[in-house]
Amino acid sequence: MKLATRRDGSRDGRLVIIRRDNAVFTPADDIAVTLQAALDDWDAVLPALAARSDALNAGEIAGKPVADVVFDAPLPRAYEWVDGSAYINHIVLVRKARNAEPPETLETDPLVYQGGSGKLLGPTDDIPLQDPSWGLDFEGEMVCILGDTPRALPAEEAGQHIKLMTLCNDVTLRNLIPAELKKNFGFFNSKPATAFAPFACTPDELGDAWRDGRVHLNLKIWLNGAVAGDVAAGPEMHFSFHDLLAHVAKTRDFTAGTLLGSGTVSNTDEAAGVSCLAERRMREIIQHGAPSTRFLQAGDHVRIEMFGADGTSLFGAIDQKVVS
Amino acid sequence: MKLATRRDGSRDGRLVIIRRDNAVFTPADDIAVTLQAALDDWDAVLPALAARSDALNAGEIAGKPVADVVFDAPLPRAYEWVDGSAYINHIVLVRKARNAEPPETLETDPLVYQGGSGKLLGPTDDIPLQDPSWGLDFEGEMVCILGDTPRALPAEEAGQHIKLMTLCNDVTLRNLIPAELKKNFGFFNSKPATAFAPFACTPDELGDAWRDGRVHLNLKIWLNGAVAGDVAAGPEMHFSFHDLLAHVAKTRDFTAGTLLGSGTVSNTDEAAGVSCLAERRMREIIQHGAPSTRFLQAGDHVRIEMFGADGTSLFGAIDQKVVS
Repeated sequence: MKLATRRDGSRDGRLVIIRRDNAVFTPADDIAVTLQAALDDWDAVLPALAARSDALNAGEIAGKPVADVVFDAPLPRAYEWVDGSAYINHIVLVRKARNAEPPETLETDPLVYQGGSGKLLGPTDDIPLQDPSWGLDFEGEMVCILGDTPRALPAEEAGQHIKLMTLCNDVTLRNLIPAELKKNFGFFNSKPATAFAPFACTPDELGDAWRDGRVHLNLKIWLNGAVAGDVAAGPEMHFSFHDLLAHVAKTRDFTAGTLLGSGTVSNTDEAAGVSCLAERRMREIIQHGAPSTRFLQAGDHVRIEMFGADGTSLFGAIDQKVVS
Repeated sequence: MKLATRRDGSRDGRLVIIRRDNAVFTPADDIAVTLQAALDDWDAVLPALAARSDALNAGEIAGKPVADVVFDAPLPRAYEWVDGSAYINHIVLVRKARNAEPPETLETDPLVYQGGSGKLLGPTDDIPLQDPSWGLDFEGEMVCILGDTPRALPAEEAGQHIKLMTLCNDVTLRNLIPAELKKNFGFFNSKPATAFAPFACTPDELGDAWRDGRVHLNLKIWLNGAVAGDVAAGPEMHFSFHDLLAHVAKTRDFTAGTLLGSGTVSNTDEAAGVSCLAERRMREIIQHGAPSTRFLQAGDHVRIEMFGADGTSLFGAIDQKVVS
């Protein structure tokens, strides 16, 4: 089942169901007005949503063209946005870029930060460029949307709380990070609003690609039309979503609709490319002594998408322009 | 105007208005079902809420006893919980306690962290003690509840976005902090669910005590019935709420219902006592070489309250028991 939020001028939009081929949608706001409302009452509304999704996919409901509407983030405002950093190659490269050591517990204790969740960007919303000197960058990531999750749960029990999957662009202001981290309270100004893919899929839509709490497919990233990365999201995800969820739930419960991110998808094989510019710049520094890739400027265009085994775009595209 | 959320088994409770003397309340869920709904549409609902509040305070509405109902946090789940650390004395003492230097930019660049906001504790909810070795502590703070706030706003324009004020107990697991900060991504496991006072007041309820973006009243804290602190919240708040809001809004918009905290209220004068145990322990270390105050244990009881010039409890009491 693929769910999405049609933008209608309200704060939370309207829940719709997307046909598997992404061509048409059908409203579902009579079952649950918003995606948050559906997640609040997931077990009760799931049968009705699934039945309508099946009817749409079987052609029993004609649906309306997806091209005719604008999608918001699946959750235009969410109660929490918790972002891990599960790809160790990204941590190692980015810390090298700012002359910082990776933490001693790199392989045993997941890195996570709490992000802002009150204002999330839709898939085609502009990325605001406030000050080019701040070093605007994108970060392509996998994201889980959680149901109600109790604290102190073991990783073995985490999977059942993952209700939906999607993608995000965790926009980052690289040059604001060093001063911010020096203060020791984590990221804040350096993490402006995050953008999300239009469609959120139940994990079964991923078939065999969803296993061990990882998505075994490639994340594709384009910058100004050229492929920047075609990066395997599965094998190098050191901490699975199950591990991340068990870690973050150590001392807290999470409410339905909490967003949990993987961190920047990253491969050690340079041929895979990158899901963020910071990694490419770091590779350039290592090879040539200095970065030749610049950060994002006004007019730049970022696209992030993931395709299933049959070539269908699973979550639709994050497709954003940078605007001053 | 004093607003509150009556717990009714739903996720967001029901909006009520509290009489100024805290004795009775009247429902307001016909004007806006929840406090979040009121904040979403603040300018439109404010006149009706204010008129009913006036009628309640004038005795035209009898109201029902406050003692008969249970209050939740004003926002049982909020879209963001952003917590500053505006009292420099607290930063200096707590960093000494963990042998860390205060940041070089202590007096010019506010410290803030993004807290978890999906599951907030009501004023009389138990504080869970999962593991006594984690060093359970309380932190008494002032909190603003924001309306929609645009990014890049100057401090001079911040005040208009502060719609309500309340108190919180920012529960902290002291012994989880050092390892967590060493990873450089900020607090996460060390900050379990935060508890809030029952009543949220419009700033005008504070009269002259609300000025310069600071609350010029004392925060009172009791531990097991004994006064632990009677701490002035105004003069030593180095960064005002206006400063904090301008800082956090540098790169992001905030949605209505965002919670912005002051950090632990702290005075350099030792006679004022403390709003958290970490400060008392640090003073003991400085004076006697070792702390004699233990962290919270099962059965301990924490009360946090603030009184107006006429002796009325402004926000009601945070009144929590520690339970294994």
